[in-house]
Amino acid sequence: MPPQLRLGIAGLGRAFSLMLPTFLADARVALAAACDPRATAREQFARDFGAPVHEDVEALAADPSIDAIYIASPHQFHARHTEIAAAHGKHVLVEKPMALSLDECDRMIAACERAGVCLIVGHCHSFDLPYLKTRELIDRGEFGAVRMIHALNYTDYLYRPRRPEELDTAEGGGAVFSQAAHQVDIVRLLAGSRPTVLRAALGSWDPRRPTEGAYSAMLWFESGAYASLSYSGYGHFDSDEWMDWTGEMGNRRSPEDYGGARRKLAAAASPEEEARAKAAATYGGPAYRAPAADEARRRYQHFGPIIVSCERADLRPMADGILVYGDEQRRRVPLSAPAVPRHEVIDEWVDAIRLGVAPRHDGRWAKGTLEICLAMLDSGARRADVALRHQPA
Amino acid sequence: MPPQLRLGIAGLGRAFSLMLPTFLADARVALAAACDPRATAREQFARDFGAPVHEDVEALAADPSIDAIYIASPHQFHARHTEIAAAHGKHVLVEKPMALSLDECDRMIAACERAGVCLIVGHCHSFDLPYLKTRELIDRGEFGAVRMIHALNYTDYLYRPRRPEELDTAEGGGAVFSQAAHQVDIVRLLAGSRPTVLRAALGSWDPRRPTEGAYSAMLWFESGAYASLSYSGYGHFDSDEWMDWTGEMGNRRSPEDYGGARRKLAAAASPEEEARAKAAATYGGPAYRAPAADEARRRYQHFGPIIVSCERADLRPMADGILVYGDEQRRRVPLSAPAVPRHEVIDEWVDAIRLGVAPRHDGRWAKGTLEICLAMLDSGARRADVALRHQPA
Ligand SMILES: NC(=O)c1ccc[n+]([C@@H]2O[C@H](COP(=O)([O-])OP(=O)(O)OC[C@H]3O[C@@H](n4cnc5c(N)ncnc54)[C@H](O)[C@@H]3O)[C@@H](O)[C@H]2O)c1
Ligand SMILES: NC(=O)c1ccc[n+]([C@@H]2O[C@H](COP(=O)([O-])OP(=O)(O)OC[C@H]3O[C@@H](n4cnc5c(N)ncnc54)[C@H](O)[C@@H]3O)[C@@H](O)[C@H]2O)c1
Repeated sequence: MPPQLRLGIAGLGRAFSLMLPTFLADARVALAAACDPRATAREQFARDFGAPVHEDVEALAADPSIDAIYIASPHQFHARHTEIAAAHGKHVLVEKPMALSLDECDRMIAACERAGVCLIVGHCHSFDLPYLKTRELIDRGEFGAVRMIHALNYTDYLYRPRRPEELDTAEGGGAVFSQAAHQVDIVRLLAGSRPTVLRAALGSWDPRRPTEGAYSAMLWFESGAYASLSYSGYGHFDSDEWMDWTGEMGNRRSPEDYGGARRKLAAAASPEEEARAKAAATYGGPAYRAPAADEARRRYQHFGPIIVSCERADLRPMADGILVYGDEQRRRVPLSAPAVPRHEVIDEWVDAIRLGVAPRHDGRWAKGTLEICLAMLDSGARRADVALRHQPA
Repeated sequence: MPPQLRLGIAGLGRAFSLMLPTFLADARVALAAACDPRATAREQFARDFGAPVHEDVEALAADPSIDAIYIASPHQFHARHTEIAAAHGKHVLVEKPMALSLDECDRMIAACERAGVCLIVGHCHSFDLPYLKTRELIDRGEFGAVRMIHALNYTDYLYRPRRPEELDTAEGGGAVFSQAAHQVDIVRLLAGSRPTVLRAALGSWDPRRPTEGAYSAMLWFESGAYASLSYSGYGHFDSDEWMDWTGEMGNRRSPEDYGGARRKLAAAASPEEEARAKAAATYGGPAYRAPAADEARRRYQHFGPIIVSCERADLRPMADGILVYGDEQRRRVPLSAPAVPRHEVIDEWVDAIRLGVAPRHDGRWAKGTLEICLAMLDSGARRADVALRHQPA
């Protein structure tokens, strides 16, 4: 057994609470320190893990008891926090979106390269095993080339409690930065070819949530393949219906449960109250509920229905396997339930750090996804194609 | 009771066989004459209806026993046959696509206007009551403006037996002329605004069927709404799964029944054999099977899953009603089963002829849809936006 990766956490909010079941269940990592401006979160972390807590990332990064930092602070801090971690020789797992600008991405990549530390970006749903396995199946060649991809996702994203900047596109808010970051990454993975051009339309139609809640986009690839991506976070139709009522976190959904996000949100009378409600329900907050040990493990996580059309088959990555619609037959390639949720993130990170395996979700890859998200905003605003210039091969 | 509309049929092929249950069940029309180059089809018509049959459209149009002609000949004849019908003072119902060029559309519109006869284009799936009712619900205003439409359809279109020209885009073949004609029409109806710009990508990846089998497109509207349209006719994933396993014709589908189209097609060794197989299974052919009286009537017809996102609800037209996903609740607006399949076509045509009600699916409307289909081919080939210039208000 190689030694455990001793993890420091920067930002004990919702993203951390979603990764926590992974950190708890995966023996390859240990929670060794954390920082967060919220005192209640620091206190809970110290209590739960008997580990040191810090008030800011500088102090965390200087902590000799950690090897690596999971940066789960708000988008706008990702670049700076990565640079600080790298400067202290810590490996970095930084949440999606990687950052808010391509310049920031370049700085992050350079800082980690200079320091000789490993940088990966995630959790992103493109880590979910059904997508990785779909890519593997395609690579075997029996279905021929990928020609067309159709990805859609209808959720209640826009009505979950938010910090003010999450509703302001200029500060990194909205469905493009937060949600397209997943969908674009998955589509790139599945296409297996360099994206060249993007065209998008943006939807923003609730004046009380004045940021993108929806989009549609087309993406073209060097291989000749093209993709159609659509997203709505307006909390109406729910496309988990087309994923066997499995939720994004691999959880079972009930078709009867409707409109919950809007109902809960109605209680918050102001942006401040809403931000407080978000914090209250997250780690260290009074309404925080620790995830039950097996809650998220039943099925793989996902980011909505996706159909990959190859020359001789359509493939649909599902939460418990891959549906393969061939010329003659339809079959299901089953995936046994994940023992550890999101173990794929730890697989990639640990293999990169311990074995030197080049990670798929490295800084250059994630910069490519951010370029496409920024291109969506630009294309939507200018009503024109955007040529992509920063896509790795 | 106003007198029945005495119908002449030009082209007794598959389109006719799909309209036949309507003509048989709808008391407002009577089958009064027909023409087709296929002698076996003429013979069966004469036998079935004791009505005169003709060898060509000139003779049919000159027949004083008819008031109107349903033109269901191959696309390339729609324009000429419409002009002939109009010249003899017959009202026209012409199949989709209206024609192969905008010039042809103009000639058809002018000929019918000159003759003072009514021209409508269909059956098109935009006649299906669930779409018309969805439009009505939107018009009431409670859901706010339409902002985004998502339409997709995955079928086995490309593997049904075809005439050679149906597999040659230059002669009007492929999914854009035949299938986008439906999808675009429905999306225009639901958007309720003038389309302005289109961007598309075309899929053609089976060298034995060298025409478009798939496409994705985005369409922008004057209102600011946008739509995403995707289609695959490659016979793999079947999106009837997302329509409660109801088929395009309102028929019940079995999820277990997979790959039938390709299996049947494998029997045809040459394009000629394939065309013969198509003719054999249609009206007058040895393998023709008359539709059972109630076969197609259980549910409304449809053209795949569609989600219309309005400001305060998503609407999904289904084969037996409309799903309305509102801010607080989800409900189903039921539609009782159609007594006569495709009665909506006869409703519109008879109201136009007898009562002078302006038809929705008139020549100018259908020319708008053809313009968009041609724009899809152009946009796909040039990899650029196409501005739309012939859209009625
Ligand atoms: N991959 C996923 O499934 C997923 C899910 C949610 C969020 N995220 C990503 O995680 C990031 C955080 O979003 P969130 O929803 O968890 O927000 P959040 O508000 O719930 O959590 C952010 C946390 O960071 C803390 N924080 C603020 N400033 C900090 C600083 N300077 N240093 C350290 N900590 C600081 C906050 O106090 C809070 O605890 C975002 O980039 C978001 O896109 C990813
Ligand atoms: N709305 C629908 O659901 C639907 C379904 C199928 C076809 N269509 C449309 O109907 C049209 C015909 O397609 P189809 O699939 O029925 O083809 P088909 O080959 O089955 O039928 C065409 C018929 O027209 C006859 N014909 C050929 N030349 C003729 C002529 N000069 N004059 C009169 N008849 C002639 C043929 O012998 C044949 O019987 C096409 O435009 C197609 O797009 C519509």
